[in-house]
Amino acid sequence: MAVYKQLVLKQRPTDGKIGKHLFTLKEQPIPSPGEGEMLIKQTYMSLDPAMLGWMSEDKESYIPPVEIGEVMRSSGVGEVVESNHPDFNVGDKVMGMTGWREYLISDGQGFNKLQPGVTEEMALCVFALPGLTATTGLYNFGEPKAGETLVVTGAAGSVGSIVGQLAKADGLRVIGVVGSDEKADWIVNQLGFDGAINYKKDDLKAKLEELTPDKVDVFFENTGGPIQQLIFNRMNAHGRIVVCGMIADYQAEKPSAGPNWIPLIKKRINIRGFAMPDHWNEIPQLLQKLTPYVQQGKIQYRAHTIEGLENAVDGLNMLFEGKNTGKMLLKL
Amino acid sequence: MAVYKQLVLKQRPTDGKIGKHLFTLKEQPIPSPGEGEMLIKQTYMSLDPAMLGWMSEDKESYIPPVEIGEVMRSSGVGEVVESNHPDFNVGDKVMGMTGWREYLISDGQGFNKLQPGVTEEMALCVFALPGLTATTGLYNFGEPKAGETLVVTGAAGSVGSIVGQLAKADGLRVIGVVGSDEKADWIVNQLGFDGAINYKKDDLKAKLEELTPDKVDVFFENTGGPIQQLIFNRMNAHGRIVVCGMIADYQAEKPSAGPNWIPLIKKRINIRGFAMPDHWNEIPQLLQKLTPYVQQGKIQYRAHTIEGLENAVDGLNMLFEGKNTGKMLLKL
Repeated sequence: MAVYKQLVLKQRPTDGKIGKHLFTLKEQPIPSPGEGEMLIKQTYMSLDPAMLGWMSEDKESYIPPVEIGEVMRSSGVGEVVESNHPDFNVGDKVMGMTGWREYLISDGQGFNKLQPGVTEEMALCVFALPGLTATTGLYNFGEPKAGETLVVTGAAGSVGSIVGQLAKADGLRVIGVVGSDEKADWIVNQLGFDGAINYKKDDLKAKLEELTPDKVDVFFENTGGPIQQLIFNRMNAHGRIVVCGMIADYQAEKPSAGPNWIPLIKKRINIRGFAMPDHWNEIPQLLQKLTPYVQQGKIQYRAHTIEGLENAVDGLNMLFEGKNTGKMLLKL
Repeated sequence: MAVYKQLVLKQRPTDGKIGKHLFTLKEQPIPSPGEGEMLIKQTYMSLDPAMLGWMSEDKESYIPPVEIGEVMRSSGVGEVVESNHPDFNVGDKVMGMTGWREYLISDGQGFNKLQPGVTEEMALCVFALPGLTATTGLYNFGEPKAGETLVVTGAAGSVGSIVGQLAKADGLRVIGVVGSDEKADWIVNQLGFDGAINYKKDDLKAKLEELTPDKVDVFFENTGGPIQQLIFNRMNAHGRIVVCGMIADYQAEKPSAGPNWIPLIKKRINIRGFAMPDHWNEIPQLLQKLTPYVQQGKIQYRAHTIEGLENAVDGLNMLFEGKNTGKMLLKL
């Protein structure tokens, strides 16, 4: 009898550190789909910074934590290998919340077929969380206007790179903050950003001032860290700050201080935090907004793909160390 | 020839401290109104924390600073004592931007007659900046809903007391933060707030938790200070924070740190800074919103009135020291 592997949560991270000791690798017989169900063989799994929150006990978060003993949560793409479902056929490629496992049974709820011409990588790098998050944050809350200046942190990341490209396509001046010269080169010379700041080596204040002669209208925050205060100081009146991620702080023992609020009054600034689960019901409209940019070739992406379920934890840690170059995917 | 007094700005505050040395008292002959003008004798002048910003050099603020040599800016109420203006008659009581002076000439621009039954104190305490600011902040940005909990700092202040009373009238649970037991008593026993926290002596965290069993949905910030972080920590998901004032920090050498932004994501919180000059054109709608509450007797106020133009600086400093009990007015 054929078996498959899955990783279930054994204990929660206590110090913000993710390690293999938090998970149990379980092997189980590959199940057969019941009436109205299908068996999906997962081929690509997404690894995202939000997973640290999902595996932590935090009743205040936007989504319930993964329970101890449950398969770790993730989105992914797979192929239907057996089907008793009227809408899904063997061979269909589907995307949805798959979890950290090689096979799964689904009744189709929350799963969608990939559109023709959309590869598995493109599905997870653009049309899944990264693109939906970028589109929600930028257009629901960022109010980008042609001629304005947008600064995005984590600019070579899966969300930041799409935010910047959408804003460029809309006629904004776009500056990205990244953690390596290679990433700086990619966003400027491949994606067409107007400038890049390497937060690990540049003179941040001087470089930011040089690259934003008209200051900053939209600040799309994916990372936190010391550059946050500098970008905040550089906001124009009526600026919008969209807070999407704070990866530099997720593992901190004590989160760093934020900016004082006096400038919010003087400059009448709006700061908006958001998380995608609030916007699941908007996905059709979000895709309608995003897809034309992709069809016009305005959204490039790159995947950083590693292999093997047993390496999921290592892949996740690469994200927190900024060692990934592109959307982190796990090939199964 | 009769003369009148005015205070003109001689130099800007350099250390956030306001003193009499910043102003020159000038005596001038009382002028006569020209064609289409009127002569106003000011009777009550408003003193507001925002004045520190107006007299400071800050090109980024929402309103240009008062220039050196100019009469200090303020709103006030006065009586028309001579008129060549078709719409204003001798004896009319008018409100507008009067400045720190006993008499002024106006072409009527920006001046409105007091409505019947509205006293000079009520005009400045409710229908001028305090009420307009409270109404703008609460309804444009606070999105108050019956059954929710609102916490307002500076709750016995001119803006905070109106914010709290509007929210109470709308069916919210309202907790106010104040700086004395007398103010706590006033907002609870006179204005009907559900609770008060004396930030100078209460155990802030324990008291806040006790008074907000359902946590906080709307945080209306007028002061800053250490309680800001505690209220921030207590926000519910989808909470709204309206930043109207930070009086505890205006005079600080180094502004205090703000909260880290991670909770903005987890709780999808919106923080909005605002200033009234952006909303001058909404004044008719704001008054339409505010007036019924006043007519129904739901808005009480109290003025803290001092006398004599030469005491304007002392009155202003009472605001920064929290020594006023009620809207600070200067009677001329």
